[in-house]
Amino acid sequence: MPNPTAAILIIGDEILSGRTRDANMHYLAGELTRIGIDLQEVRVVSDRHEAIVAAVNDLRHAYDHLFTSGGIGPTHDDITADAIAAAFALPLGIRDDARAILAAHYQRSGTDLNDARLRMARIPGDAVLIENPISAAPGFSLGNVHVMAGVPNIFQAMVASLLPRLTGGRPLLSQTLRVMRGEGVIAAPLAALAQEFSDLTFGSYPFVVNGAYGTNLVVRGQDAVRLDQAMVRMLALFGEAQQ
Amino acid sequence: MPNPTAAILIIGDEILSGRTRDANMHYLAGELTRIGIDLQEVRVVSDRHEAIVAAVNDLRHAYDHLFTSGGIGPTHDDITADAIAAAFALPLGIRDDARAILAAHYQRSGTDLNDARLRMARIPGDAVLIENPISAAPGFSLGNVHVMAGVPNIFQAMVASLLPRLTGGRPLLSQTLRVMRGEGVIAAPLAALAQEFSDLTFGSYPFVVNGAYGTNLVVRGQDAVRLDQAMVRMLALFGEAQQ
Repeated sequence: MPNPTAAILIIGDEILSGRTRDANMHYLAGELTRIGIDLQEVRVVSDRHEAIVAAVNDLRHAYDHLFTSGGIGPTHDDITADAIAAAFALPLGIRDDARAILAAHYQRSGTDLNDARLRMARIPGDAVLIENPISAAPGFSLGNVHVMAGVPNIFQAMVASLLPRLTGGRPLLSQTLRVMRGEGVIAAPLAALAQEFSDLTFGSYPFVVNGAYGTNLVVRGQDAVRLDQAMVRMLALFGEAQQ
Repeated sequence: MPNPTAAILIIGDEILSGRTRDANMHYLAGELTRIGIDLQEVRVVSDRHEAIVAAVNDLRHAYDHLFTSGGIGPTHDDITADAIAAAFALPLGIRDDARAILAAHYQRSGTDLNDARLRMARIPGDAVLIENPISAAPGFSLGNVHVMAGVPNIFQAMVASLLPRLTGGRPLLSQTLRVMRGEGVIAAPLAALAQEFSDLTFGSYPFVVNGAYGTNLVVRGQDAVRLDQAMVRMLALFGEAQQ
């Protein structure tokens, strides 16, 4: 059975303006690979309602899972919950279970649960809450859409709460051979090897160090034995003794 | 007149697997903001022909410019030029001007211009070459699609070659006020301010430092005088003296 597929949607003007460098895509990409969910697409869109709704509807229909990052805080520019509700044509109101979580959290710190903070208890339909052990305000899973915060440490905590609920597949394994030769030299034998091991994928990633060209050769697949076989062949073709 | 709009398409399995952390989106986002081109969307897709063609056709029709990163090297997994040609329904062959650039480069280093390296001279239609001062193999602009390498220092050099050719608009300016208060406290007055200054956009970005909540308040717009006016108001509402 093929692995489940996934997309990530990152929501935020601050990423598109270059002000903030996104960290969540790279983090979640690694976690998904580890549990055998194939990340096939990432999109970044601005804080515009129509842009978010369109991307959510595109991606939730195209992939088994959609993970979103950003826009679920208490301020006026936090519009992700509204957009998710609109994408599903569901009403969006304050839900008692989410309100109770916030009330307990703010009571502990002696902080007022004001209207702005209450916005974070707005949960569409019968969405399942995603626990937030850092700042309490929950994310939620609605169908195959998993809505999480943009602040990296909160995002990572929510991912840790969510992933055990999801069913992965066979993890995508990879091995890397680093050779101090340029891609132009290795391209032809590497292409032949990729054809021979057509159940695996081969990537070639050039780099320059101290003015010398090198290449990271990465082989990916689900079968550890096949990866080992491919590595033996790559070593024979490109290993130190051949240089 | 509104600013030109843009999207970025990042091509590469190594980003989606979490192996490599993309650096090009953040770099180009900052450069575009500086010259007044509004980046509205970013997509990351895998090294699959159909995925690249579909994304290119979506994005080149939706925005004034599309910038791509990755997949134009000499190895079998470098399929971006083929996908761009397919998206435009153009043939893809070795072009004499690109071949001459490569021939001169490899002659200087005493390296053979073999078939793999010649693949990098395949340029669709009447595309305009984008100079690569680092490793010679050019990028190209076909219509509103600008195709560049994925290796960050080569990508940045190509961006430097390309941007002077593009017409920007009024740069998007921003100012930031850092306050040591949580978003929940400032949300209501900030929303009122955003309504009053409806020609500007206000972003609110929470952080935690030493266990204390803080928020970066960012105001964006094209009119420096209006930004200053908004900052004066934000200082009065949220500045040190008010805490």
